[in-house]
Amino acid sequence: MSDDALGALIINCTLKASPEPSNTEALARIVGGQLAARGVAVDMVRAVDHDIHPGVSSDEGDGDEWPAIRRRVLAADILVMATPTWLGQMSSVAKRVMERLDALMSETGGDGRPVLYDRVGGVVVTGNEDGAHSIIAHIAQGMIDVGYTVPAQAWTYWHRGPGPGPDYLDDDTGHDWAHATGETAARNLASVARALKERPLPAPAS
Amino acid sequence: MSDDALGALIINCTLKASPEPSNTEALARIVGGQLAARGVAVDMVRAVDHDIHPGVSSDEGDGDEWPAIRRRVLAADILVMATPTWLGQMSSVAKRVMERLDALMSETGGDGRPVLYDRVGGVVVTGNEDGAHSIIAHIAQGMIDVGYTVPAQAWTYWHRGPGPGPDYLDDDTGHDWAHATGETAARNLASVARALKERPLPAPAS
Amino acid sequence: MSDDALGALIINCTLKASPEPSNTEALARIVGGQLAARGVAVDMVRAVDHDIHPGVSSDEGDGDEWPAIRRRVLAADILVMATPTWLGQMSSVAKRVMERLDALMSETGGDGRPVLYDRVGGVVVTGNEDGAHSIIAHIAQGMIDVGYTVPAQAWTYWHRGPGPGPDYLDDDTGHDWAHATGETAARNLASVARALKERPLPAPAS
Amino acid sequence: MSDDALGALIINCTLKASPEPSNTEALARIVGGQLAARGVAVDMVRAVDHDIHPGVSSDEGDGDEWPAIRRRVLAADILVMATPTWLGQMSSVAKRVMERLDALMSETGGDGRPVLYDRVGGVVVTGNEDGAHSIIAHIAQGMIDVGYTVPAQAWTYWHRGPGPGPDYLDDDTGHDWAHATGETAARNLASVARALKERPLPAPAS
Repeated sequence: MSDDALGALIINCTLKASPEPSNTEALARIVGGQLAARGVAVDMVRAVDHDIHPGVSSDEGDGDEWPAIRRRVLAADILVMATPTWLGQMSSVAKRVMERLDALMSETGGDGRPVLYDRVGGVVVTGNEDGAHSIIAHIAQGMIDVGYTVPAQAWTYWHRGPGPGPDYLDDDTGHDWAHATGETAARNLASVARALKERPLPAPAS
Repeated sequence: MSDDALGALIINCTLKASPEPSNTEALARIVGGQLAARGVAVDMVRAVDHDIHPGVSSDEGDGDEWPAIRRRVLAADILVMATPTWLGQMSSVAKRVMERLDALMSETGGDGRPVLYDRVGGVVVTGNEDGAHSIIAHIAQGMIDVGYTVPAQAWTYWHRGPGPGPDYLDDDTGHDWAHATGETAARNLASVARALKERPLPAPAS
Repeated sequence: MSDDALGALIINCTLKASPEPSNTEALARIVGGQLAARGVAVDMVRAVDHDIHPGVSSDEGDGDEWPAIRRRVLAADILVMATPTWLGQMSSVAKRVMERLDALMSETGGDGRPVLYDRVGGVVVTGNEDGAHSIIAHIAQGMIDVGYTVPAQAWTYWHRGPGPGPDYLDDDTGHDWAHATGETAARNLASVARALKERPLPAPAS
Repeated sequence: MSDDALGALIINCTLKASPEPSNTEALARIVGGQLAARGVAVDMVRAVDHDIHPGVSSDEGDGDEWPAIRRRVLAADILVMATPTWLGQMSSVAKRVMERLDALMSETGGDGRPVLYDRVGGVVVTGNEDGAHSIIAHIAQGMIDVGYTVPAQAWTYWHRGPGPGPDYLDDDTGHDWAHATGETAARNLASVARALKERPLPAPAS
């Protein structure tokens, strides 16, 4: 990559296996498109299509498909966690991905810095009711714990309470807001990712 | 009171002083009306109208108006915390009330039981965007910590994301759902309050 | 069962498959012992030993082992969710179980009441650092959503911050507190379960 | 200020008015000292010493002391929110400060960018039991909402569960970890603040 080239990975944490349509993927693609429009190479994975074993090491043995996703995480300057909402909370698939990222907290480079430093994280949430702010809080906290920097307003969501109702793909209401917010997220993710390339986080001794 | 008589206190934790109209009060009154329809005597207080001092004791000295509210809390079998949503979270006024309830955790009767045992708690949330489930989680947890039992589905909310929009009093959409859910909350609060009067929580030694 | 007989199910949501020792199971067994001492028949399952498919229906098809666990959930008056802490949050296994319980929210009996009504829920959390109160908040909220009543102080935890440190099974510090708190949880779970048997939650029309 | 000069504001959200000793201030001063060692001018305010009115506008009228604190917020490149823990959650004083920051979300400069852009936020939590990760999640989310960027690992905490116990100022255990973690937070806050000065977040049109 040139100094300026950035890569992003979007992990779609829907509960639905491919090829079932995913509301979360639809909104995540808006953010992905806005990243691409700013020169970012965008990779996307639907986590539930892979057998990600429970555990908090980087490789949980035979059949664990996390190591391949982990390589894509490490290749990306920008990580976007995209999740549906169940009971007002992130999906179990999103929680599993966060758990597996946990192992990376203690992996450091030759300079003693966690390997995830100088990367940025964002969040996309969909649901038909309520829960986005809390999910953003908990995913952002986990990302910050393991080494990501979370830029200002680096998230978007689509929710439509009160109570159950149509999904994102069934109802155009509020798409304008969710897409404009997603554009802001993409703009800030790309810009802060570039800022951290130019001025990396310091090593522990400094 | 007769054995069957129940009392409820609704604490409205809006940021707006009386007589400004409060969306939260409007939805809380729906729950209050449903409690009254089940023979519950309903008291209501707008917390921000009172000078509730910071602190975690039951009386924070000169000018602290919590002791008078605390007496109304202790007179009620049912406590309903009603709060608006700011940044997806409960109001600072609701947080202040929860903090002051904290002192009651270590106050016990002659039988060694916390004074708030055998009481039930419910939650009402309003806002124009998102955040109700998380607020319900955190208020319920605080109530359970200090001695309240939280009945099944003892909450209602009105939120209308994605993004900013009209308030509860400005938009009739979803009122049916919020009111029916509030009726369920009232029904379960009154019933579990009666169940705990009939079979109080045991003392520590038992 | 006699009118008085109660059953409990403890779901251990550790990430470690049997027969690996589980800190969470160890603390959950304290609560289980205290339930048994009060005449409750205690069942326990380690969720990660079973292939619980992603999804929010009650049966996600071929190979899904949730339906068998669901039957044990429905046979229990008391559900104890026991989880370790990762990144300060519940495990992905606990989140998966909560998601599968979600389907039960809309399953009702002939009287129109959700099938999980009249049951009580409690929480056990272990970890070496911090996060128990928030996990209790989110599990309690999910349980309350689907129809459980959460009794006063129906939880215990063992955490030992600041920062990483020994696990529950490696360090006796604070066991007295965690066990006494677990005894209170068991006492209140059994008592409120009995109270709800005697006075069930009302049906919607009432 | 020279291009390189940075300013930080630490808001101590203890419930105790000056001159009562504050555990939160003690740990926050560690982070402040580490910021100063990196050339950052450090300002500190104890919020509870000021009459910060409830509300979500930037000036809530006669006697409101927020406008003066708001000026100090706007003068700072780095904001550190420092809070004690009550019921496992941030203090009502911290919640009040976050609410007042909310008004800044919709204040923009001539370029259409929120006035809080290009600033970074960090968190310090103290308590004698549990709750830090969740508090960090909710404060970080609020900061990110209003325009702050939250750098990797930009927090520290001191908690010492299970159950109640000594405070930070009463017990040296774990100070090494909390201080080293606070040094990392300061290092990353100063570095990302500099990175955002060099490469500011883009304006909406870009």
